Amino acid sequence: MLAGTTVSSSDRLSIGAKSPLTGGIKESNAGGIVGTRIARQGLRCIALEDAPGKESEWKIIVVGKDGVEFEDGTFLEGKGVYEKSDLLAEKYGRKAGCITIGPAAENLLLASGIACSDPHGVCSRYAGRGGLGAVMASKRVIAMVILDDGEVQPDMVDPEAFKEGSKRIVKLLKDNPVSSLFTKYGTAAMVDICQSLKVLPTRNFTHGTIEGAEKINAQTMYDTIEKRGGEGKTRHACMHPCAIQCSNVYPDKDGKLLCSPVEYETMALMGSNLCIKNLDVIAEMNRIANDAGVDTLDVGAAIGVAMEAGLAEFGDEKAVIRFMEEVRDITPLGRILASGCKVAAKVLGVRHAPHVLGQAIPAYEPRGTKGMAMTYLSSPMGADHTFGFTLRDEEEPASKEGKVELSKKFQVIGSRMDAMGMCNFVRYSVRNDMTPLLDLIKAFYNVEISADEFDDFVKETLRIEHQFNTDAGITARDYRFTETFYEEVQPETGETMDITDEESALARQW
Amino acid sequence: MLAGTTVSSSDRLSIGAKSPLTGGIKESNAGGIVGTRIARQGLRCIALEDAPGKESEWKIIVVGKDGVEFEDGTFLEGKGVYEKSDLLAEKYGRKAGCITIGPAAENLLLASGIACSDPHGVCSRYAGRGGLGAVMASKRVIAMVILDDGEVQPDMVDPEAFKEGSKRIVKLLKDNPVSSLFTKYGTAAMVDICQSLKVLPTRNFTHGTIEGAEKINAQTMYDTIEKRGGEGKTRHACMHPCAIQCSNVYPDKDGKLLCSPVEYETMALMGSNLCIKNLDVIAEMNRIANDAGVDTLDVGAAIGVAMEAGLAEFGDEKAVIRFMEEVRDITPLGRILASGCKVAAKVLGVRHAPHVLGQAIPAYEPRGTKGMAMTYLSSPMGADHTFGFTLRDEEEPASKEGKVELSKKFQVIGSRMDAMGMCNFVRYSVRNDMTPLLDLIKAFYNVEISADEFDDFVKETLRIEHQFNTDAGITARDYRFTETFYEEVQPETGETMDITDEESALARQW
Repeated sequence: MLAGTTVSSSDRLSIGAKSPLTGGIKESNAGGIVGTRIARQGLRCIALEDAPGKESEWKIIVVGKDGVEFEDGTFLEGKGVYEKSDLLAEKYGRKAGCITIGPAAENLLLASGIACSDPHGVCSRYAGRGGLGAVMASKRVIAMVILDDGEVQPDMVDPEAFKEGSKRIVKLLKDNPVSSLFTKYGTAAMVDICQSLKVLPTRNFTHGTIEGAEKINAQTMYDTIEKRGGEGKTRHACMHPCAIQCSNVYPDKDGKLLCSPVEYETMALMGSNLCIKNLDVIAEMNRIANDAGVDTLDVGAAIGVAMEAGLAEFGDEKAVIRFMEEVRDITPLGRILASGCKVAAKVLGVRHAPHVLGQAIPAYEPRGTKGMAMTYLSSPMGADHTFGFTLRDEEEPASKEGKVELSKKFQVIGSRMDAMGMCNFVRYSVRNDMTPLLDLIKAFYNVEISADEFDDFVKETLRIEHQFNTDAGITARDYRFTETFYEEVQPETGETMDITDEESALARQW
Repeated sequence: MLAGTTVSSSDRLSIGAKSPLTGGIKESNAGGIVGTRIARQGLRCIALEDAPGKESEWKIIVVGKDGVEFEDGTFLEGKGVYEKSDLLAEKYGRKAGCITIGPAAENLLLASGIACSDPHGVCSRYAGRGGLGAVMASKRVIAMVILDDGEVQPDMVDPEAFKEGSKRIVKLLKDNPVSSLFTKYGTAAMVDICQSLKVLPTRNFTHGTIEGAEKINAQTMYDTIEKRGGEGKTRHACMHPCAIQCSNVYPDKDGKLLCSPVEYETMALMGSNLCIKNLDVIAEMNRIANDAGVDTLDVGAAIGVAMEAGLAEFGDEKAVIRFMEEVRDITPLGRILASGCKVAAKVLGVRHAPHVLGQAIPAYEPRGTKGMAMTYLSSPMGADHTFGFTLRDEEEPASKEGKVELSKKFQVIGSRMDAMGMCNFVRYSVRNDMTPLLDLIKAFYNVEISADEFDDFVKETLRIEHQFNTDAGITARDYRFTETFYEEVQPETGETMDITDEESALARQW
């Protein structure tokens, strides 16, 4: 709604398709500059329909002020995302908004994501989840480029009111304790929170705490980045403008950029979940994942399963890097890991596969937080941490009492941001009052919409998404964790999964 | 019903469970001597309930006249089926009825089967389909032994009538053109039939004929076995008594047993489907499959998918042996292949995966035979060639007209044999008149049952099986081929798949 304007954190790029990972609807969004570039071309949406055969040559779709071109993309084939990113920048300029995929997607692997240009012209902002990279590859589109020649400026009905409203958003973000904490520490702040709540995924989601969590927490990350200096940044914006700047640049020992960003979900799924307590190793895994073009959550969870299968010991730092190299090199084992934890568990003979609808559970152990568990079981997109985030508002996280209502409340709060195209972290500032954003819509479009009307629209979206899944053959029985979560106790909380099919069905009812 | 008696082909062993391959009900049956041994112990059924944890040690369940023992089975762990078979024979005697699993099952792989003793005391008769080996392994049972000390003799109500009825079955089998053809050529006779009907699976189920099919047909097999002599046998019984003797012993160039039996389904899925036109290579693949403990159909189909993914050229004889060695050695690629073609296609990024409900399509290209296609879409067990075998009775195989009724007719005919515990090939002799078998039941048990009553019982079984699947979360949308079968023409017949969900649902209605 507000992409291309001066409103903070309003330029998220949303990518959607039928997910080959879950078999249902998928929307995955990314920061970066592509949303801005699309707005500057005067576009709101780009749709790719149908798919040529797999014998068709790779194409780059180039969108500019003079139209759309399908250019030869074969020179990008098989290359890592970082190299593709450089080749695209060389050809189309660092300021072009580029979207590309890695070797994992070219090989149609289920955990492959889509990489989008960050403000430095590096494709490192991921619409990572749901295997959307494989969808793009199945269309034989190896990259899309939105040229930096767009001349369309936002044309507000009431520019003054819009300017005032935009300033108000910045103030709200800066005043909010959650988003301002993210400014200093980024999402890494969640490590300590989850460790204390006993929901930090550990040892393939069999535990909720890990000894030595402080080695990979926000303070250690902050101190490491500060100490190493160089290209490192504790605070960094994935898009402009942004008043939160939760991103970071994690430097290697020589101060050179190793990976940007390194986020909590990755630190948990590729860190604590594998008993890896070394930020350098996590950042290196993250870098290889970005280069291979895979989701760090789904591959992290798959590596956890591989470790449970005995392919390596938990905590083995060399093994996890080797696993990631196998992913990048698309070896048979790499293919298994880049297929996500559900498929990996089948192939590796493991029962305890942490997923819902085939998508890996994010970094909150569900037996310890029944609100998040309810959300995982209710999302039309498989287990999802950007949807219905209850954790901060659960008085008794391990109890399922009242969690249908709580999850639904936060499903609406989160989905409002997706519907606006805003960064998910803006929700903390407007969760009790959407007026600041609705006022901006009025000032821009002269469309008056009440908070209730907006929520009705959000709920209608959820209904349509669930209907899509039903039409795709997904049933109530698919919205479950694997049996082990119901049978086996999480030691730190003494909890098993106790949410019934009936309860989770209520949380999907709109 | 008649196991342990003098009735030909009546000692099939039926093994059932919830299938990890399809997620639904599974019954898979095998020839060999185990059925006889169970009857001699006075048993009709052995049920294994629950499962210990994966840390439990491997057990052998030994059933004898003095009771049941759980013995240590750790000495069998990790060994191939042939070696396991020898070790079991050494310990329990060649005449004991043994059931064991291979390394694939120990690793819980989805295409793993269960191997049962043949009359020579070699575990080479497979209940191959549906991943039942993995189910047995999940219970930490590495072998079951039915000792040859059973003293229970069949106690007929009317021995004279039974003896007469038993002779009548032999005469019916010998007079029947289909079963008598199997006596000479075994199931290999199907190669020429399917080639001429254009439904011989070729090149990962993209074609229905192959140039040079005569190199792997029944006559070539017959001539090869005859010429090599030695341990080779063109005619061989998997159980005693049997008047059909469709089995064979395929010898190597020196006349030593290479594999017994080599059957049509394997010759197609591991032969024509991979463009392999060399019986020695197929027999060697079959031997390795038996040793690894995997189903030749599901792994053959998975190799077809791997070849389509470009992992080897179709027809590459060295590559297919290497693939099978990877299966036996449980390498990452071997795990992928031993997970069946549905999972392999996901991991290898291939759309054209020949399966229904996750179980590989048997050796009849469905676009060319809509009767078999209807059957594949109707079986509660995934694509299955022992269920509703219409091919010999389709006037226009490529047309779907009348195929709901035809498939249902043969579903009943085939299911009667399963319900009786008879070999499926007896059906040709009693398809129009079940009286000869029903008379045997009367003579044995003094139970009078009409043909209609028996069919009602069979239909009730099918209803229960479908209800099991529904309860397990399988829906009408799961009974489909992959999209490619609907989109892409089989060149030899010009046909695509045109059976609708509504039509296949009718064929599952009882």
